[in-house]
Amino acid sequence: MSEPDTKRPRSSADAPYELIYWPTLPGRGEFVRLLFEEAGVPYTDTAQELDPGAAASKVIDLVSPESGADIVGPSNPPVLAPPALRHGDLVISQTPNILLYLAPKLGLGPRLGDSDGDDNIAALHLNQIVLTLNDGLVAEMHDTHHPTAVSLTYEQQKPEAKKRTRHYLDERLPKFLGYAQRVINAKTSGEGPWLYGGSLTYADLFLFQCVDGCLFAFPKTMAKLRESGEYDAVFKLYDAVKERPNIKKYLASDRRQAYGQGIYRHYPELEEE
Amino acid sequence: MSEPDTKRPRSSADAPYELIYWPTLPGRGEFVRLLFEEAGVPYTDTAQELDPGAAASKVIDLVSPESGADIVGPSNPPVLAPPALRHGDLVISQTPNILLYLAPKLGLGPRLGDSDGDDNIAALHLNQIVLTLNDGLVAEMHDTHHPTAVSLTYEQQKPEAKKRTRHYLDERLPKFLGYAQRVINAKTSGEGPWLYGGSLTYADLFLFQCVDGCLFAFPKTMAKLRESGEYDAVFKLYDAVKERPNIKKYLASDRRQAYGQGIYRHYPELEEE
Repeated sequence: MSEPDTKRPRSSADAPYELIYWPTLPGRGEFVRLLFEEAGVPYTDTAQELDPGAAASKVIDLVSPESGADIVGPSNPPVLAPPALRHGDLVISQTPNILLYLAPKLGLGPRLGDSDGDDNIAALHLNQIVLTLNDGLVAEMHDTHHPTAVSLTYEQQKPEAKKRTRHYLDERLPKFLGYAQRVINAKTSGEGPWLYGGSLTYADLFLFQCVDGCLFAFPKTMAKLRESGEYDAVFKLYDAVKERPNIKKYLASDRRQAYGQGIYRHYPELEEE
Repeated sequence: MSEPDTKRPRSSADAPYELIYWPTLPGRGEFVRLLFEEAGVPYTDTAQELDPGAAASKVIDLVSPESGADIVGPSNPPVLAPPALRHGDLVISQTPNILLYLAPKLGLGPRLGDSDGDDNIAALHLNQIVLTLNDGLVAEMHDTHHPTAVSLTYEQQKPEAKKRTRHYLDERLPKFLGYAQRVINAKTSGEGPWLYGGSLTYADLFLFQCVDGCLFAFPKTMAKLRESGEYDAVFKLYDAVKERPNIKKYLASDRRQAYGQGIYRHYPELEEE
């Protein structure tokens, strides 16, 4: 591939990490925050550094066709939706993509080595696991309360939400938790409670946050699924992440935001039979 | 990260590429096929090599909790859904992940270099573009005809499909085509009609297939959007890919399957006001 005309961005090792995300909810930004928190690496976070109005404006300006290009600069393609990460001159978006970039830098995933090398295969396997969890436990979870349109409120699509949620809780949630269980039980998971390679990676932090969100949104269903014993490895991993010293401190801090109008919402009526 | 107990898979340069995907529709497998076809690199394809029943059985066995582990072998984590790619001992899934692996091998994307290097940034930018197109023009497109449950037929969720499609065509489709237009018009796209870096990459093949699918599914809406002139760069890219000699040959061949019961479906009633 030929080089683009513009100078490629370089992320300096000394540059600060800046997370740009909506305020007042954990949302997709949380999957990024957990890496910094586990690694004990400083980062700025629009949701923490600015008041909610200013943080929201910053996100809106970033994704706006008018102002977005100036904000990302000439060496990055436009960003359609948050979260975004700024690191030096680099601005990237899409949660699994941000994690792919950060994980090796924070010791939470293999380096992206030569494309024929061993490390690359581990990185691709981890990316595969995270993309699958993201499909089922983030994107599909979001659509339980927004099955018709993101431009409508939940209240404007309640009958459709009720139908979609019933199928989600009966079919999809067990399917994706069962997938996570299979990954943990596979030979590739190695020793310990983790998904892959015998030590904690960003995929484990990702699954932790998915399970935590599901426990908040659908507590009765999750209690039944836990009691079934079929997902023991998943809940064991969840508990193990929760007890990591840095994660424990983070969850008790005011940096950990309460669930609100994000992906994981608790509408008790959606869980009723 | 420590090494897993099991031997890591190695993909041999001499090993054949094997695509495992549902027969009788282009589906998500098409995003993989287009790379091989453009590059002129041989591959096997369950949808082509086997009769439909045998091809479907092969996919079902791969994703089954009972037989899947044996099929992927001890050095790969389980696969939840097709497409999957086998290359030597390696088996990977998730469309954007398969493309990330294949693109540098087929000359359709930068090598995944050192994580601080320039090439990695280009790979991450391309991955970001593909993940965004995948969200809006594949996953959300699929849900226009399946807004309630994948376990139900379209006919069982027609009223919900009608509502979701209206919002999709009015709000989401223009949003994502507008995003593609902005990417092509950004400085990072370089010379020529392409999305990134001044030459054809796998992201361009991805966008081509999205637009082709949308043209099939919603011809009236796409005609209006084309006529608006707001997405000229997108349609120019679409036309440019379609005229690539290898792609042109492929589209005229019987390897290119007709649209059917996949992501892109043409239900005329969904497009009516």
